[in-house]
Amino acid sequence: MKDEPTLMRISWKKYESLSLTEKAHYFNEAGRLYHIMIAQQFDRSRMDELGMLATIIRRIAKTEEGIKFLKDLLSHKRAMLYFSQPSSRTFLSFCAACQILGISIGEVRDTATSSEFKGESKEDSVRTFSSYFDLIIMRSEVGGLAERMAWVLSNSERPIPIINAGSGKDQHPTQALLDIYTLQRSFEGNGGIDGKRILFAGDLLRGRTVRSLAWLLTAYRDVKQIFAAPKDLQISEDILAMLDQKKIMYQRIDDFKSLIPEADAIYMTRIQDEWDTQKAGKRNERDISKYSFTGNDLKRLKKSAVILHPLPRRSEISTDVDDDPRAVYWRQMRNGMWIRTALIATIFDRKEMIKAYASYKGIVV
Amino acid sequence: MKDEPTLMRISWKKYESLSLTEKAHYFNEAGRLYHIMIAQQFDRSRMDELGMLATIIRRIAKTEEGIKFLKDLLSHKRAMLYFSQPSSRTFLSFCAACQILGISIGEVRDTATSSEFKGESKEDSVRTFSSYFDLIIMRSEVGGLAERMAWVLSNSERPIPIINAGSGKDQHPTQALLDIYTLQRSFEGNGGIDGKRILFAGDLLRGRTVRSLAWLLTAYRDVKQIFAAPKDLQISEDILAMLDQKKIMYQRIDDFKSLIPEADAIYMTRIQDEWDTQKAGKRNERDISKYSFTGNDLKRLKKSAVILHPLPRRSEISTDVDDDPRAVYWRQMRNGMWIRTALIATIFDRKEMIKAYASYKGIVV
Amino acid sequence: MKDEPTLMRISWKKYESLSLTEKAHYFNEAGRLYHIMIAQQFDRSRMDELGMLATIIRRIAKTEEGIKFLKDLLSHKRAMLYFSQPSSRTFLSFCAACQILGISIGEVRDTATSSEFKGESKEDSVRTFSSYFDLIIMRSEVGGLAERMAWVLSNSERPIPIINAGSGKDQHPTQALLDIYTLQRSFEGNGGIDGKRILFAGDLLRGRTVRSLAWLLTAYRDVKQIFAAPKDLQISEDILAMLDQKKIMYQRIDDFKSLIPEADAIYMTRIQDEWDTQKAGKRNERDISKYSFTGNDLKRLKKSAVILHPLPRRSEISTDVDDDPRAVYWRQMRNGMWIRTALIATIFDRKEMIKAYASYKGIVV
Repeated sequence: MKDEPTLMRISWKKYESLSLTEKAHYFNEAGRLYHIMIAQQFDRSRMDELGMLATIIRRIAKTEEGIKFLKDLLSHKRAMLYFSQPSSRTFLSFCAACQILGISIGEVRDTATSSEFKGESKEDSVRTFSSYFDLIIMRSEVGGLAERMAWVLSNSERPIPIINAGSGKDQHPTQALLDIYTLQRSFEGNGGIDGKRILFAGDLLRGRTVRSLAWLLTAYRDVKQIFAAPKDLQISEDILAMLDQKKIMYQRIDDFKSLIPEADAIYMTRIQDEWDTQKAGKRNERDISKYSFTGNDLKRLKKSAVILHPLPRRSEISTDVDDDPRAVYWRQMRNGMWIRTALIATIFDRKEMIKAYASYKGIVV
Repeated sequence: MKDEPTLMRISWKKYESLSLTEKAHYFNEAGRLYHIMIAQQFDRSRMDELGMLATIIRRIAKTEEGIKFLKDLLSHKRAMLYFSQPSSRTFLSFCAACQILGISIGEVRDTATSSEFKGESKEDSVRTFSSYFDLIIMRSEVGGLAERMAWVLSNSERPIPIINAGSGKDQHPTQALLDIYTLQRSFEGNGGIDGKRILFAGDLLRGRTVRSLAWLLTAYRDVKQIFAAPKDLQISEDILAMLDQKKIMYQRIDDFKSLIPEADAIYMTRIQDEWDTQKAGKRNERDISKYSFTGNDLKRLKKSAVILHPLPRRSEISTDVDDDPRAVYWRQMRNGMWIRTALIATIFDRKEMIKAYASYKGIVV
Repeated sequence: MKDEPTLMRISWKKYESLSLTEKAHYFNEAGRLYHIMIAQQFDRSRMDELGMLATIIRRIAKTEEGIKFLKDLLSHKRAMLYFSQPSSRTFLSFCAACQILGISIGEVRDTATSSEFKGESKEDSVRTFSSYFDLIIMRSEVGGLAERMAWVLSNSERPIPIINAGSGKDQHPTQALLDIYTLQRSFEGNGGIDGKRILFAGDLLRGRTVRSLAWLLTAYRDVKQIFAAPKDLQISEDILAMLDQKKIMYQRIDDFKSLIPEADAIYMTRIQDEWDTQKAGKRNERDISKYSFTGNDLKRLKKSAVILHPLPRRSEISTDVDDDPRAVYWRQMRNGMWIRTALIATIFDRKEMIKAYASYKGIVV
């Protein structure tokens, strides 16, 4: 393992010149996941392992005794939640994931209360956090910042792992993993994700979630990806080029509603107005209703299909859809907590202990 | 118990049409307190039970061993503190109450750091929190919001209890309960609350505390309620109508100072300028000193009487009153921590375990 | 011990009239450190004791078992972090120190979310916190406020200890203690702090850190203090008068760079623009580079010397210095966590338990 690629053995300049697939090899330590940075780190076997671990944890947590077993696993660790971009969902689910494993939490959310206004560099801030904590979970509006910080820490006296909880417009790997986990669970008794048709709808250009998920889905056999979006918000060319290269079936369409009956999973997304700095006036001119899902659309949806949404939503899914058993977006959100718990447990090498406990208690997955 | 009224078996429209007394029946599950929403949920036997439990907990917490017993009771639970209205006292005492019982805490206080600006509905936000936590404690400037959220959760796939930590101008049930607990303790060797004269002073119109307390006091025999306030800030007609209906003795007066010698308890309140959006200019024209309590007034106060205040105070109680043993407002604040601990322990069915421990340890109440 | 001076036996007016050295006697209870307020509380034997305890704790924390031993020590306590002045470093290291000892934390950082806008006095706020917690750690932009609060609490029904985490422009005792601890460790195999030359550089007028450290260093034998600063930012006259009185060697110079080869420790500081409210325009006229340390300066630095910085830094230390083993400022930051842990353990009388555990485990210091 001494010759494995790690961030310690590469200059930042060299690292930056790599492709995502190449970069993905640099985030391990001792053959195990260390930094969680980009979706490209996860091949099918890693996703299967993670999903299985998340399910084991979920079942262990059904009893008070099980919860206490989990809470003792990493009670000697402390994590820093460093969120300089607004978020409640991702923040709270990481918070819950840490608490499930007994990890103490420190947080910096409002940069106005931090040292940053004194002119400190981000590198120094993150080295500061690494002095006091054993794990940093960070979210930033700056693309690539989490990777830079992982590189800085791996090359410092006190390397600790970093989890990218969303950086810039590009990567949000734990969101993509929870989406995969939700699809795994949804198709559990139905052949798994292989061979399914996944219909993405809404703002596919700026949602980093869709980009990462499109990549992860290429690990499955015969999955067809359908992108339904207004022309100016269609999935970007680099994703299509990637799909072409991997010989993945896909389709770009304008008319979302007509494809509903053919989908096995529909992945709705929100038109992300918060990136719209320039032409704010144009926002209301677009007919969003064409990319929304209503109670009426339920009738045309397959019985075995599911509807996902990364949330928060606005009007793109009407609330009368919520009670349908095919609406899995609330469960999807809770899956985020479990998959993040599984990730952190993996980073800190608790996978085998968890499996052993489950096996001893007769918990079968 | 299957036929008990619960929020699961009533439409929101129907629920909204009920009176407070009728609503009060809908917050139980399995015959036990579940959601804590309004003062009307608490009859005398519930208040006596809660007060007794708070006192037991307080005594258990006098030893390190006792504190550790308490901290293990709910260490498998996680609570969300969702405070969209400024507060430090209520927030911190709930925070302490959770910590006393070993409950892990997540918090959303500044809505600017949350998802809400992305246009998410409050209903969706609260369903989000319910995905990650086992209890929601919420404070909001919107009247009735906590009830709406309790209804939403009780009708979701994953119902969890909500505690109303202050909503709008109307209800702040845990504040009223801590006031009652303070009166219970203050009159412990003196016949209890029955037969006492309670003198309210200050802004009785807008203080939700006084409204709830006035209601709870009707559970006691022969209590006289005296409302001393400037005419435009007097207690509202709906409270007086309620007192009339229950045949409770009361009096509305202008001259606070003259009644001091007759009072068994004086409940001071602050002129709540933060609601004064319109006529801010008028604020200073009112002679607040007529509704304040100073060191001089102590001489005219009964030896056995007590002075309460929900705090924070401005000038309505001068600091030279603080050292008098009859000034119980600091203890009152600490009582808030104990009564909230007792409430949460009750919701999660730990009352009997706590009593058993106290009995085993020879702690008598 | 009944006749020991404490804040309970002195009026505020009398207390205020005392010198710092006189005040220092008033912060004990039962012969033990209670409030941590000013650097003057720490004589050499206290600093030696604290440094030794910090090192023991640091070594215990190297194993999972040790971490769990520490985390159980004060798991029955709750601390309030009350930071009304921006800070991330001090906040997070106190947060970590509490977590290491198992102390639960409540925090008030943004005063906009607190009760203060309702017009509550600071005294009342702090009495509120003391109702719910066992320790208050406070940072404020108001000089002397922490002392006032310590006096208020010591004279209340429920005295609890306060730690001053920085108040106004004057005192930041825990920062000075971590600096001393860093010097102790740096000169461990090299005769200790006695006889060393400490070269301070930068803004020596307004950095409260330097003021406190200059005082603490007078406890060591034959230490020479050299102050290198632009004339308008030189160390203030009261510090020099203190050094004169104690017959400590010192030197004030303009030319920082020329003294580098003679220094055993260089203490760099940042030009604190955030105090510069008046003549903001002048900021850029000053040639800061004369008081900065670069990679080139490393060549002229003694092999055994060390470079400290309280951080955050701007440009006064260039990043190419970071990897030199003599750059100890990252370790210094982590020392802050250990020395604060040692302080809190001392306040709550856990020193002997920690020593006993270390001795039993064969941990030698």
